[in-house]
Amino acid sequence: MARRTGRRPGNQDTRQAILDAAREAFSERGFDAASIRAIAGTAGVDPALVHHYFGSKDQLFLAAMNSPVDPGELLPKVLAGDQDGIGERLVRTFLGVWDSPAGNAGVALLRSAVSNEWTARLLREFITTQVLRRVLDQLDVERTELPLRGSLVATQLIGLAMMRHVVRLEPVASADPETLVAAIGPTVQRYLTGPLPS
Amino acid sequence: MARRTGRRPGNQDTRQAILDAAREAFSERGFDAASIRAIAGTAGVDPALVHHYFGSKDQLFLAAMNSPVDPGELLPKVLAGDQDGIGERLVRTFLGVWDSPAGNAGVALLRSAVSNEWTARLLREFITTQVLRRVLDQLDVERTELPLRGSLVATQLIGLAMMRHVVRLEPVASADPETLVAAIGPTVQRYLTGPLPS
Repeated sequence: MARRTGRRPGNQDTRQAILDAAREAFSERGFDAASIRAIAGTAGVDPALVHHYFGSKDQLFLAAMNSPVDPGELLPKVLAGDQDGIGERLVRTFLGVWDSPAGNAGVALLRSAVSNEWTARLLREFITTQVLRRVLDQLDVERTELPLRGSLVATQLIGLAMMRHVVRLEPVASADPETLVAAIGPTVQRYLTGPLPS
Repeated sequence: MARRTGRRPGNQDTRQAILDAAREAFSERGFDAASIRAIAGTAGVDPALVHHYFGSKDQLFLAAMNSPVDPGELLPKVLAGDQDGIGERLVRTFLGVWDSPAGNAGVALLRSAVSNEWTARLLREFITTQVLRRVLDQLDVERTELPLRGSLVATQLIGLAMMRHVVRLEPVASADPETLVAAIGPTVQRYLTGPLPS
């Protein structure tokens, strides 16, 4: 197997042990309840080494997910600007990632999530803690409505990725991104800030 | 392997040969271009036997897909009534199927489609010819817009199935069906009959 960095094999084994422990902890306990301390304990290393290798808990989670992108870097652009445009900007950014080489990792993640309950749980934690929480925190809506709003957004975006990149249903599969932004942006906007069923 | 019917093994082998040939033809040529005659030829049987075992080409396709439901039976209820209510009725019927035991077959189909290009093509043909075509034919909108409208509907519905039944993101995973009908129905309605980006 190709090594991704020039680090020595010994370090690679340690990194892998940490990633394995992290995947297990994030999947079984969820992102919030999983602790760097417990992950380090499972991997048999000092917590400081986990921070040294991977940085924050968010960054460790992204590494454990093999995420090719960091929503924490992408989302500020989506959230900057008027609240009425978040839907379109979120769809545009989402398509930008999926239409890039990073989309292959996304397809691999979807494949794994539909066949493996463990990965499905990681994907759920990723969507919730890395994407939705950051977006929802910025909205001027009832706090109690946030979980439903967030999961509705997820239905539309994951379905877009499925149809465009996995099932490849035309014309969505090869449509100009801006056509999809114009068509689907208002849906995401309504889920985020529009009226919800009581 | 358990036999599904009381037919003799010889018949089962013939049926299986027809189903294998049908899957190949529908996947490689698409539903419209595949012919019962050619499928019978590949299976080494008379076309009349294909009709005898499976009925129409639609029914053969449903059998080849292991579809637990026949959209041709479900959709008339969706399409009956006012055009402004099609979105909600389509979401309600879709959830009814996925929330029933038939949903397990749906999840199995999604699993197969994301890992297998062949099944992805069959799923695409199923969505297009068995579901969307029947719905879109009833709409009072520009014919040229139908493919985009249909594939947008597919993004929302397949994403709903993914989040509710595969990734199981709460609260969508366990929400009351009517909450989802009220929230997602207007999206499907807009995709079907609302203004589209030019």
